[in-house]
Amino acid sequence: MDPVKVTLSEQELPTHWYNVLADVKVEMFPPLDPATLQPMAPQKLAAIFPMALLEQEMTGERWIPIPDEVREAYLLYRPTPLYRAYRLERALGTPAKIYYNWEGVSPAGSHKPNTAIAQAYYNKKEGKRRLATETGAGQWGSALAFSCNMFGMACTVYMVLVSYEQKPYRRELMRMWGAEVFPSPSEKTASGRHILEGDPDCPGSLGIAISEAVEDAATHDDTNYSLGSVLNHVLLHQTVVGLEAKKKLEKIGVYPDVVVGCVGGGSNFHGLAAPFIADRAAGKNVRIVACEPAACPSLTRGQYTFDFGDTAGLTPLMKMYTLGHDFVPPAIHSGGLRYHGMAPIVSALYHAKIIEAMACHQVAAFESGVRFARTEGIAPAPEAAHAIYAAEREALRCKAEGKSEVILFNLCGHGHFDMSSYQKYFDGQLHNYEYPAEAVARSLAKLPKVG
Amino acid sequence: MDPVKVTLSEQELPTHWYNVLADVKVEMFPPLDPATLQPMAPQKLAAIFPMALLEQEMTGERWIPIPDEVREAYLLYRPTPLYRAYRLERALGTPAKIYYNWEGVSPAGSHKPNTAIAQAYYNKKEGKRRLATETGAGQWGSALAFSCNMFGMACTVYMVLVSYEQKPYRRELMRMWGAEVFPSPSEKTASGRHILEGDPDCPGSLGIAISEAVEDAATHDDTNYSLGSVLNHVLLHQTVVGLEAKKKLEKIGVYPDVVVGCVGGGSNFHGLAAPFIADRAAGKNVRIVACEPAACPSLTRGQYTFDFGDTAGLTPLMKMYTLGHDFVPPAIHSGGLRYHGMAPIVSALYHAKIIEAMACHQVAAFESGVRFARTEGIAPAPEAAHAIYAAEREALRCKAEGKSEVILFNLCGHGHFDMSSYQKYFDGQLHNYEYPAEAVARSLAKLPKVG
Repeated sequence: MDPVKVTLSEQELPTHWYNVLADVKVEMFPPLDPATLQPMAPQKLAAIFPMALLEQEMTGERWIPIPDEVREAYLLYRPTPLYRAYRLERALGTPAKIYYNWEGVSPAGSHKPNTAIAQAYYNKKEGKRRLATETGAGQWGSALAFSCNMFGMACTVYMVLVSYEQKPYRRELMRMWGAEVFPSPSEKTASGRHILEGDPDCPGSLGIAISEAVEDAATHDDTNYSLGSVLNHVLLHQTVVGLEAKKKLEKIGVYPDVVVGCVGGGSNFHGLAAPFIADRAAGKNVRIVACEPAACPSLTRGQYTFDFGDTAGLTPLMKMYTLGHDFVPPAIHSGGLRYHGMAPIVSALYHAKIIEAMACHQVAAFESGVRFARTEGIAPAPEAAHAIYAAEREALRCKAEGKSEVILFNLCGHGHFDMSSYQKYFDGQLHNYEYPAEAVARSLAKLPKVG
Repeated sequence: MDPVKVTLSEQELPTHWYNVLADVKVEMFPPLDPATLQPMAPQKLAAIFPMALLEQEMTGERWIPIPDEVREAYLLYRPTPLYRAYRLERALGTPAKIYYNWEGVSPAGSHKPNTAIAQAYYNKKEGKRRLATETGAGQWGSALAFSCNMFGMACTVYMVLVSYEQKPYRRELMRMWGAEVFPSPSEKTASGRHILEGDPDCPGSLGIAISEAVEDAATHDDTNYSLGSVLNHVLLHQTVVGLEAKKKLEKIGVYPDVVVGCVGGGSNFHGLAAPFIADRAAGKNVRIVACEPAACPSLTRGQYTFDFGDTAGLTPLMKMYTLGHDFVPPAIHSGGLRYHGMAPIVSALYHAKIIEAMACHQVAAFESGVRFARTEGIAPAPEAAHAIYAAEREALRCKAEGKSEVILFNLCGHGHFDMSSYQKYFDGQLHNYEYPAEAVARSLAKLPKVG
């Protein structure tokens, strides 16, 4: 019988990140300059990103060494444990075997530090004293605050004003690690002041917060900007998750039939799936399933085209599945999945039909999250509950088909800072959002036409 | 060089709890009947406790087998990891080696499920359908909710009204695991109704909540009562922590010079310390240090005498260090340490000078907690920060004396639900409470005189 929990020794912590593009041939497109709509010179990005990360963004190398200093910081919570979900299997009455990789053991409570640590390290090494970033509910901001603190760097987080006021505890967690946190729009930047002049009561948005963080970085020599998902180098850093998960399964002689993750920007899903995607591309019989929110379904309902990464249209354009950067996703309680686009790598893999995608309504995700807490114990983040939902759906298919397939999913974070959302669910105040087809159509119609 | 993290395999999970009283000869006293002040017949307690736990309460056996069902539930988070606090050592500039056992990995976020699981199991086995308990900030209530759910039992938690309103997220965590949570005083019990008649705006207290939970259990045949600390069987269940910690240190060839824990009721401290206490009693050179809050210092300033376990004087009297059951501890932000008494076993060990005790003001504890988060990553519970403070004090002594002693402490829980307290600390609104000598003297003067 499998053990409940599989762990690795510190010696087994991966020494390299894995670049799936070295093995899986999909067409990738260079980012476009927002001013000219022509391919962007990497040097232009050097104003806000360190060279090491820009190199990783474009590398064709298969294995990228993880620096010793990064591995040492990883050891504060890595290798993470992998669990066999015996109790969930019993509750579902499925012959399937369900395994989950548990990333919520990081101090920030999610997989986000896997890239935040690396980004802090490279920026520090290239002489930067401070990182600026934006955050919505605070998952990414707290991961970067934690990571900057590990390397003695300052960290400035522009937190969307409504979240700053409504979710004060992630804000305090950022302060715990020494970050300065400003409600956005703020008086600290020209773009923030400009917005406040027009609307002193502006509740803020992720788009505005990105503009503030980018401006802060661009206008301070000692400061760079940091992004928590979407970009190639972010997805690269997250592959430490999948490399570990594969090794943990190998220890018990198991290989998955289905690999499942939730997707917002795409980094946690890709992190778990990358090594299995390569196997699939090489002919191995393994399915890879991404689960996104039905209210913000960029893969299953979006267009594969060039779009800006932010709402304001300041960032380079990337070729990706998108609902249009002008589209404001409904206020679902999975802030980490409320993104109009999708990582270019994940988009290309989906376009090439190497991975599958599905969508899930939020009430169903919360149902799965609560069932998980009542079987496996852990209270999951609402984002992670989307992965649980998808894993359960596969397990119920196995039950219907009488198959004992192996399902692996990534439990990317805990829900300790999401209890107000669960409260709404328990009180029957959580509802689903219909797919906002008209708003998406309007948003897509505004996209610039690119070759 | 030591690894950062030491883990055990599932096969190494302890098979028995350890009863320190079998090896350490201290004088223990039977509990007294509150009605007669005479030794209490165990049968009288059988109205609200299962026989298996009453037997454990009085056993002279050295090793008590952990039932398979309990071990299986333990595996959801046990064995827990042990860490070498390299980064904290560096920050303190100490030659001491600091290790901490990390109990915050349990789904409830603390060591409390170690006994809650066992209590749920034995009650279920003896035919009970439901457990009732009280909770202050919610740490114990959530552990019992989690554990009852694991064994398909119902769980009713009487939560002190002010906490119910001010700390809603632990309340939601209890609902996550299916518990029903009532603000106390409630209309559900005669004692609750009686209090509400006299004072409809009563904010509640732990004493009142205990009365409600005990009444609920006593008046329902299918329901028992459950307590999260103080009693011998609770301390016994927590020894799984120390047995594991000792085994983890043995793996790297280390034995501690000092073992440290925070104390409120005493169970987490005893859990870690028990096997080392036995070694010390057998002549081994190891110091055992309990750290309590300076605002509620039962060991360092209390009397060793018979006192009630609750505020209302309904429970049996136990021989323990106490500030008097009438004493209401100041509103420090470590709800788990706000207890007027101390576990009889810990009290007897202290009285026999086998263990040491010290007290710590809350601002200093928060300072230590924040330093810990900024070095080791983990945001600790304020209760756990008392143990960090004590470990740091030992480490700084080692620095002054040029000694590289080994310090082991128990990091009993995370602070994810305590961020409002950290917010007060960051905002400079947290202050120390002077030891309330007069209130304690008044409270002690009211104690019944017993042989």
